Amino acid sequence: MSAVMGHNRYGKDGIRLVLVRRGEGPHRSDVLRDLTVDVRLEGAFDRVHTDADNSPVLPTDTMRSTVYALAQQHLTGPLEDFGAALAGRFLDVSPACTLAEVRLREHGWAPLVGDAHAFVGGSAECATALVTRRRTGPADTRSGFSGLLLLKTTGSAFSGFLRDELTVLAETDDRILATEVTAEWGYLAGSTPAYDVARSAVRAAMVSTFAVHESRSVQHTLHAMGEASLAACEELDAVTLQLPNKHHVLVDLAPFGLSNDRAVYVATDRPFGVIEGEVRRSG
Amino acid sequence: MSAVMGHNRYGKDGIRLVLVRRGEGPHRSDVLRDLTVDVRLEGAFDRVHTDADNSPVLPTDTMRSTVYALAQQHLTGPLEDFGAALAGRFLDVSPACTLAEVRLREHGWAPLVGDAHAFVGGSAECATALVTRRRTGPADTRSGFSGLLLLKTTGSAFSGFLRDELTVLAETDDRILATEVTAEWGYLAGSTPAYDVARSAVRAAMVSTFAVHESRSVQHTLHAMGEASLAACEELDAVTLQLPNKHHVLVDLAPFGLSNDRAVYVATDRPFGVIEGEVRRSG
Amino acid sequence: MSAVMGHNRYGKDGIRLVLVRRGEGPHRSDVLRDLTVDVRLEGAFDRVHTDADNSPVLPTDTMRSTVYALAQQHLTGPLEDFGAALAGRFLDVSPACTLAEVRLREHGWAPLVGDAHAFVGGSAECATALVTRRRTGPADTRSGFSGLLLLKTTGSAFSGFLRDELTVLAETDDRILATEVTAEWGYLAGSTPAYDVARSAVRAAMVSTFAVHESRSVQHTLHAMGEASLAACEELDAVTLQLPNKHHVLVDLAPFGLSNDRAVYVATDRPFGVIEGEVRRSG
Amino acid sequence: MSAVMGHNRYGKDGIRLVLVRRGEGPHRSDVLRDLTVDVRLEGAFDRVHTDADNSPVLPTDTMRSTVYALAQQHLTGPLEDFGAALAGRFLDVSPACTLAEVRLREHGWAPLVGDAHAFVGGSAECATALVTRRRTGPADTRSGFSGLLLLKTTGSAFSGFLRDELTVLAETDDRILATEVTAEWGYLAGSTPAYDVARSAVRAAMVSTFAVHESRSVQHTLHAMGEASLAACEELDAVTLQLPNKHHVLVDLAPFGLSNDRAVYVATDRPFGVIEGEVRRSG
Repeated sequence: MSAVMGHNRYGKDGIRLVLVRRGEGPHRSDVLRDLTVDVRLEGAFDRVHTDADNSPVLPTDTMRSTVYALAQQHLTGPLEDFGAALAGRFLDVSPACTLAEVRLREHGWAPLVGDAHAFVGGSAECATALVTRRRTGPADTRSGFSGLLLLKTTGSAFSGFLRDELTVLAETDDRILATEVTAEWGYLAGSTPAYDVARSAVRAAMVSTFAVHESRSVQHTLHAMGEASLAACEELDAVTLQLPNKHHVLVDLAPFGLSNDRAVYVATDRPFGVIEGEVRRSG
Repeated sequence: MSAVMGHNRYGKDGIRLVLVRRGEGPHRSDVLRDLTVDVRLEGAFDRVHTDADNSPVLPTDTMRSTVYALAQQHLTGPLEDFGAALAGRFLDVSPACTLAEVRLREHGWAPLVGDAHAFVGGSAECATALVTRRRTGPADTRSGFSGLLLLKTTGSAFSGFLRDELTVLAETDDRILATEVTAEWGYLAGSTPAYDVARSAVRAAMVSTFAVHESRSVQHTLHAMGEASLAACEELDAVTLQLPNKHHVLVDLAPFGLSNDRAVYVATDRPFGVIEGEVRRSG
Repeated sequence: MSAVMGHNRYGKDGIRLVLVRRGEGPHRSDVLRDLTVDVRLEGAFDRVHTDADNSPVLPTDTMRSTVYALAQQHLTGPLEDFGAALAGRFLDVSPACTLAEVRLREHGWAPLVGDAHAFVGGSAECATALVTRRRTGPADTRSGFSGLLLLKTTGSAFSGFLRDELTVLAETDDRILATEVTAEWGYLAGSTPAYDVARSAVRAAMVSTFAVHESRSVQHTLHAMGEASLAACEELDAVTLQLPNKHHVLVDLAPFGLSNDRAVYVATDRPFGVIEGEVRRSG
Repeated sequence: MSAVMGHNRYGKDGIRLVLVRRGEGPHRSDVLRDLTVDVRLEGAFDRVHTDADNSPVLPTDTMRSTVYALAQQHLTGPLEDFGAALAGRFLDVSPACTLAEVRLREHGWAPLVGDAHAFVGGSAECATALVTRRRTGPADTRSGFSGLLLLKTTGSAFSGFLRDELTVLAETDDRILATEVTAEWGYLAGSTPAYDVARSAVRAAMVSTFAVHESRSVQHTLHAMGEASLAACEELDAVTLQLPNKHHVLVDLAPFGLSNDRAVYVATDRPFGVIEGEVRRSG
């Protein structure tokens, strides 16, 4: 028997970069960037596996060095531009590479009011970007964010669903709706989006839609959030949303002689519903 | 050989409670409380272990029920008051119990501006409280918070330290200082603190001190943050701080012909320094 | 503007099932199964999103109930058979569903020698399966395992790789090689594999190959492990491996006047290399 | 107002050490040790905080170096001996230090049968040790382990407990009992224990007792496991056990017309009971 390689790729995960752009003068603020970067390369790497020929392999340690070496010159604006510079660099130095993918997450830090050099962090919310470059053609750029926790105490129902003999779920016209938004979107061909403006617009559209939408299901809310995002940013082509349903279960206090009119809930961990979908422009 | 019981206790960890206090009228805001509660009881429980006599054991499942059953009536203000009600209840219903300890963490949710019923969460920062009650005497109440990430890009040095033959650390007069603050404090005997006011005052004092303090070491900053806390809240007796040193290492870019004047850092995970200490009033 | 749905699906994650099959008679052993199950359905669900029409939606709570309700009858053998029963059930009861996917992980417990009813667990290693069924055609069944930690203290080199001006990694002819194997494979069309026999054979082939293979790179080892798996189980079509490179860095003890001849290493967390590839039969 | 230091200490957490002791000759096995080490120093460090005087501070980076520098000479036997050497070293080089505490966890790797240089890992179970040394007097040595998952399918009851009006838990004479054992013990003054022999004996005693004990409560099992440990190792003074009660809840399948005679369970995450206690020799 002989074995051949199918699809394969390699890279580095979890490259942690903090970049400080120093302000000038005693009262100028510093800018703080805090990123985690993952890299993947694809291409003519079969013989690395089959023939132990390492000559095409750019070491993953070099991917790490590259992130640090390019940061000062190329991490001056949106995540997406830094990702494009990194992916381009990998194509330039690795002849065997035909596709370079760079995934970036930026961890938020808020400057402390009144101080130009101190920051507070701690949120799970990240800005994200995924940049893919090939030998020819434009970069494929996707933007997004993750870790945004949203909860509404009313304005969410779930009823009229399919029932089989194993269905015991009660219908409800008023439940807590809670989720942790992961969103990612691409851009219309030929557009030149301002990535950070787009991300802010999409996030704002999603948050305000979540708040005011009369939800009939998580799916219903997903579509509304996607539609509002497309309306808020005309360069967007389509947006993909992952919305776990972080269930909050009303506690039965009747055995204790107590009422519980949508007041006392258990926040549950597992299992949880997962709703995933893409919303795109029609026509 | 015979074996006897030494110190023992039991309880329930990870009780997840979400309480919604509904506003009245269409434009009234809801109040959202999101807590995780741990309970421990101590007392005359030796024979449960040695003689399989369960008659003194209030089930840990009942501790869970108690948190939910008491929430509407007793979680109307600070965490500390809810903890005191819970601990008191456990002493009341369990004759064998001589000490009841309740630990509470509150997960933050910010109301969305312009909407009275939607909230955004996602921060690792929690308000904390630890309430201990015995059969006689006042409750021992400790307040705190955890998960506050702080980072400053300048104003932190570390030099003049002890060196042995295994010491290779370079002295520095300007490094990144980053930490995740865990703080806990007690109150002067006889004081009647407004717990939430105290927590806000302590947090504000710690954050602003961290920002402006010219740090000579994490220990030095710990003392300054503790001192500022005592000054900011006169009911405080003493404050305990845990300050992990989340190291940021300047990357050597010289091999690549690049300068790195306090710009490009690696954020490291492990190992990390840990500085722990109590700061209390003198005299 | 109008927004339409692209690809979408929904389901339940993290359904935790423990099944005990009781032995008969005082000396008969119990069988313990400990699974985590995830479910996804795809199909004609667009109008759930766009029109708030819930009539096609089998609730995710029902997916949970289904796992528990089918366990006694259908979890009598391999994971894959239970997955097929679940996926078939979802197609049966949901007219809108065109594709049902069930992912299963089984957590290992070893019976204690000499006792028929007690078990020891604690390993991160899981058996895995992914079963996908459509309205017509056979189920697509993939088997695998995850969480297998392997380390070898010698017999691993990495040299002759591509160098650019950012490459500082030294070549080595003897390093520690450590990884956490995630493996998944499919079966030849028309084969009727004994899934548990296949999994044992593949695991054994991978482990012994890892041990004795003279590795020139992680990619080289990946191919050897894949090839050995195909040889060990003739029903296998192709096997996909994910091999993170859990770097162990030799500590420089020279500043302390100590030698370090491949003895003292730092086990690092992040970043880490990732090698992913499929090995399939040729011809 | 003036603020003074109360109790304070500092150190390093998460020092990751892998030590390979090379066998000699082609067929000699290597020995693999994989440790995580935490260090704490206490002493005359107040002025570090109050006066920014760093002269007494041995850097935490040096603690890290010390673990690596001492490994080859001192990690030749039990964890406890390595901990004692480290703690002694810190007292030697730090004049301000009056107490040095070293906590060690060893992660298990099993050699692959038939190969002298490859290992399989992946268990959450660790051997643990905590060594505390002061300027005078013997070291205080505590041994233990953590992460041992045990489950029994029968032989566990819980009934006859205290009931109040919030108690809804049903009594049971046959439930699943599952826990993750954390155990730690000290030794009789003047004893010279073989630490690894003691750990093996205690672990074996605990596991076999868990298996065969007719449990009336987790507390009851805790005492039996502690008593068996003291009997199994005569140098032991007292043993402390932490036994979380990893609840398995029988699923109600009656709504589906199915019986469930102790067969189908939900393994729950949170909340969970916690039973903690010390068992010591009487008289």
